[in-house]
Amino acid sequence: MSALIRSTSEAEPATVSGRPEFLKARPLGLDSFRENVVVMARCSQVLRPERLRGSRKVELRAGDRTLLASTMIGDPDLLLPDEIGLPQPLFRRLGVKAGDLVQVAPARPPASLAAIRAKVDGLVLDDAAFAAVARDLADHRWTDMEVTAFLVACARFMSPEETLGLTRGMIAAGSRLDWGGKLVVDKHCIGGIPGNRTSLIIAPIIAAHGLTIPKTSSRAITSPAGTADTMEVLARVDLSEAEMREVVETCGGCVIWGGRVNLSPADDVLISVERPLSIDTPEQMVASILSKKIAAGVGRLVLDLPVGPSAKLRDSREALRLRKVFEFVATNLGLEIEVVFTDGSQPIGRGVGPVLEARDVMAVLANTPGAPEDLREKAIRLAARVLDADPDLPGGKAEARARDLLQSGAARRSMAAIIEAQGPSPLSGALGSLEHEVVADAAGHVTAVDCLRIAGIARLAGAPTDAGAGIEILHRIGDRVDRGDPLYRIYGSDPSDFGFAVEAAGADAGFRIGGT
Amino acid sequence: MSALIRSTSEAEPATVSGRPEFLKARPLGLDSFRENVVVMARCSQVLRPERLRGSRKVELRAGDRTLLASTMIGDPDLLLPDEIGLPQPLFRRLGVKAGDLVQVAPARPPASLAAIRAKVDGLVLDDAAFAAVARDLADHRWTDMEVTAFLVACARFMSPEETLGLTRGMIAAGSRLDWGGKLVVDKHCIGGIPGNRTSLIIAPIIAAHGLTIPKTSSRAITSPAGTADTMEVLARVDLSEAEMREVVETCGGCVIWGGRVNLSPADDVLISVERPLSIDTPEQMVASILSKKIAAGVGRLVLDLPVGPSAKLRDSREALRLRKVFEFVATNLGLEIEVVFTDGSQPIGRGVGPVLEARDVMAVLANTPGAPEDLREKAIRLAARVLDADPDLPGGKAEARARDLLQSGAARRSMAAIIEAQGPSPLSGALGSLEHEVVADAAGHVTAVDCLRIAGIARLAGAPTDAGAGIEILHRIGDRVDRGDPLYRIYGSDPSDFGFAVEAAGADAGFRIGGT
Repeated sequence: MSALIRSTSEAEPATVSGRPEFLKARPLGLDSFRENVVVMARCSQVLRPERLRGSRKVELRAGDRTLLASTMIGDPDLLLPDEIGLPQPLFRRLGVKAGDLVQVAPARPPASLAAIRAKVDGLVLDDAAFAAVARDLADHRWTDMEVTAFLVACARFMSPEETLGLTRGMIAAGSRLDWGGKLVVDKHCIGGIPGNRTSLIIAPIIAAHGLTIPKTSSRAITSPAGTADTMEVLARVDLSEAEMREVVETCGGCVIWGGRVNLSPADDVLISVERPLSIDTPEQMVASILSKKIAAGVGRLVLDLPVGPSAKLRDSREALRLRKVFEFVATNLGLEIEVVFTDGSQPIGRGVGPVLEARDVMAVLANTPGAPEDLREKAIRLAARVLDADPDLPGGKAEARARDLLQSGAARRSMAAIIEAQGPSPLSGALGSLEHEVVADAAGHVTAVDCLRIAGIARLAGAPTDAGAGIEILHRIGDRVDRGDPLYRIYGSDPSDFGFAVEAAGADAGFRIGGT
Repeated sequence: MSALIRSTSEAEPATVSGRPEFLKARPLGLDSFRENVVVMARCSQVLRPERLRGSRKVELRAGDRTLLASTMIGDPDLLLPDEIGLPQPLFRRLGVKAGDLVQVAPARPPASLAAIRAKVDGLVLDDAAFAAVARDLADHRWTDMEVTAFLVACARFMSPEETLGLTRGMIAAGSRLDWGGKLVVDKHCIGGIPGNRTSLIIAPIIAAHGLTIPKTSSRAITSPAGTADTMEVLARVDLSEAEMREVVETCGGCVIWGGRVNLSPADDVLISVERPLSIDTPEQMVASILSKKIAAGVGRLVLDLPVGPSAKLRDSREALRLRKVFEFVATNLGLEIEVVFTDGSQPIGRGVGPVLEARDVMAVLANTPGAPEDLREKAIRLAARVLDADPDLPGGKAEARARDLLQSGAARRSMAAIIEAQGPSPLSGALGSLEHEVVADAAGHVTAVDCLRIAGIARLAGAPTDAGAGIEILHRIGDRVDRGDPLYRIYGSDPSDFGFAVEAAGADAGFRIGGT
């Protein structure tokens, strides 16, 4: 028999929780972009900052508000020993003003961090572990390095049950929208295909038909434009939950960025790390997409999985595996899902990058002659799958209905209403002024287009941060080209970014030309 | 036949490399601990800082010196649009003074980053890829998040050939010491056993015998004290390469921190990320240890691999696998290696944490009655393996020679000379003033001690950053204890850290007591 030994710690409750102290809040005009960062004096009365080196955070408290932040050390010309330097946003989040006292204590290393080591070691986590991880992620208790380690370790192996556990934990760590019994539908794509902006066409078709489609989407993770990035060229997208609800009540749908609605906030933290690393992994993608949809109150989801040699899914084996994980998790969480495999062999439409993609979308909605046919037909096909959720629509009529809503202008009017309701775009909508044509160096037929390469070049050119940067594609697979014919144009506005993109296209343009 | 298409980029060399511009260097009293960080004005003339959000770095150039840094945005009260705020160390590294012009350009995303994606996808990298990774790591071209992703992805799978490639790349990316034909030996342990500070006893024994032992070691990664942390209680350890050489020429050996000698600097970057994450992985450990030893000019290495239920190596299968990787890489790089499996079932010596471990070491060297016998005997056994490299020592005499050098006081005098030559310690050497006894809650025999738990509690107490924090162990496996008998004492000086440690010991003290 073996007994676990316990210490006599109960005698010292006062030291167990540490000794928080108070520092005067001093405004410091610094923006660190990512994590909350505060500055403390090298000789701070409260904490020896050397001890916080690297990984440890401090917990700030003012009234009933708390937040965690990483620390930097400031010299005496920046602040006094009894002060703590706070960037402006932290004053707002803590509800304090300059000179107010803020309680500062070293943050307890979160117990959920054990999940990192466990996943690195190849262990399987249970629902409780994922719930704790999601809560602490949502509370910003992990550092970027810790989030990175967790994501990459999970990329190694995650069972479908673990993906379900992570999804559940992520839903529980945020808000959940309730649409009061309405038939709420959505359409989503896992991404990877440049220019594939069907959501911006499908949402107004569905809304015009009368179903509810509260579409939230992320900004680009690995691509040159996310749905939110492209919509932002047309309208404001950073809506609050109340604003989103109003738009959906009025218009039947919306297309917004999910960052301000607190749906699956843990996912926002994971994505904030995936973005600079340009990494997204299948299981994390399932948890990310499904947690957002379920939290948004969606009851039926049509999911676009493009398959192609340079798509996220290379072959039908990979696609089938991912489809089953999506179906397993969605079904267990009460979300009806229809997975559609689509052609992912080349970009869709002509534009790659927010401004260029928004132009394609508006051309399709306006039935402009010469609008990209592949984009229009794919949007109609997927919209039909979504419309099939409507019990009042006879079987086999969904595609005709979707086409009619588009051709009659109903979808265009619906989109105009959504744009009006969401508010004006903060962006200029102008295309980058720098332009470079990439030409064929041999005659023949286009036999392949490398989606990853095209996306990479568009990102180097500045997309999506620079909305006017990107690529305009002039040829598709099967087209005949002569030597010297332009294959695509690169647009950009920053000379150095543009230079990197042009250089990359020079090394490998991403187009293959077969013999004449 | 298929032809790769190239762009016509050659026409625009000026834009390809971007357009660097000049900003005035302004001192900014900020210390970010880890990465180089610079501050630019929100409306900087040169770069739109929003574009650098998250991942991108800037390259700074002054004269022939360049360095890479992450950016923060500063408001007008911190700096003007034509200024760049630099922390003091960057002035030194760039060789500029306040007001000097510094050339600033967006850093080109290093091509070596492709290695991250490749490892996440489970691919095998070649020597050239690892060489590029090591060079860019040494040049600080990767962000902490990128380094983290690479490390964790490599933890998934690395072939022995890849580990050899990484080791080779890491050696090539730094300096290499040459001792002019001397017989240069070393001893190293992979760590994981609290209190296992045999190097501090072995180095003076070897030096007293007359072989050359230029021991460089890292600070603690996952443990409460590294060899360098413990040595720092006794002497200065941050020696430059020239200073190290002088100490070794004078004393025959040294025990220093490797951070200032530019041996395998890429490893220092990897370790700087492993430390806050408390993660180290087998292959990375092989590359780290062997690259440092080979760069230090070591010809023969005795490697201590402790095996035990809570050690880094849990069983003989794991130990054998790691031994073979060490042997494969060392042999291919011309390093003679002898791997010794040792008992890793419990801590060695009594102290855990820099000050307490230094006390154990000095007690053994001084032949103080009651000095920890397990530490002494293990040091003698390993020292003998190292001495066996000496062709002039008859077979079978090495252990007696090691014991004699210790008992005669020769090793103590050698250590005193090394300490004198390295210079005085910057630390006080005082034990933490907070003390807490952890007691047995049942009578019986100690049947197991959890090394990981003991290390974790000592780290929570503040070790190694707080050198006086740690644990003094009072019982070993097999000892008889009564209920209420003290098992160990926790020391610390920071109330909140100490509180965390006491609380953790309360939850699980790490000792198991078997039936009476």
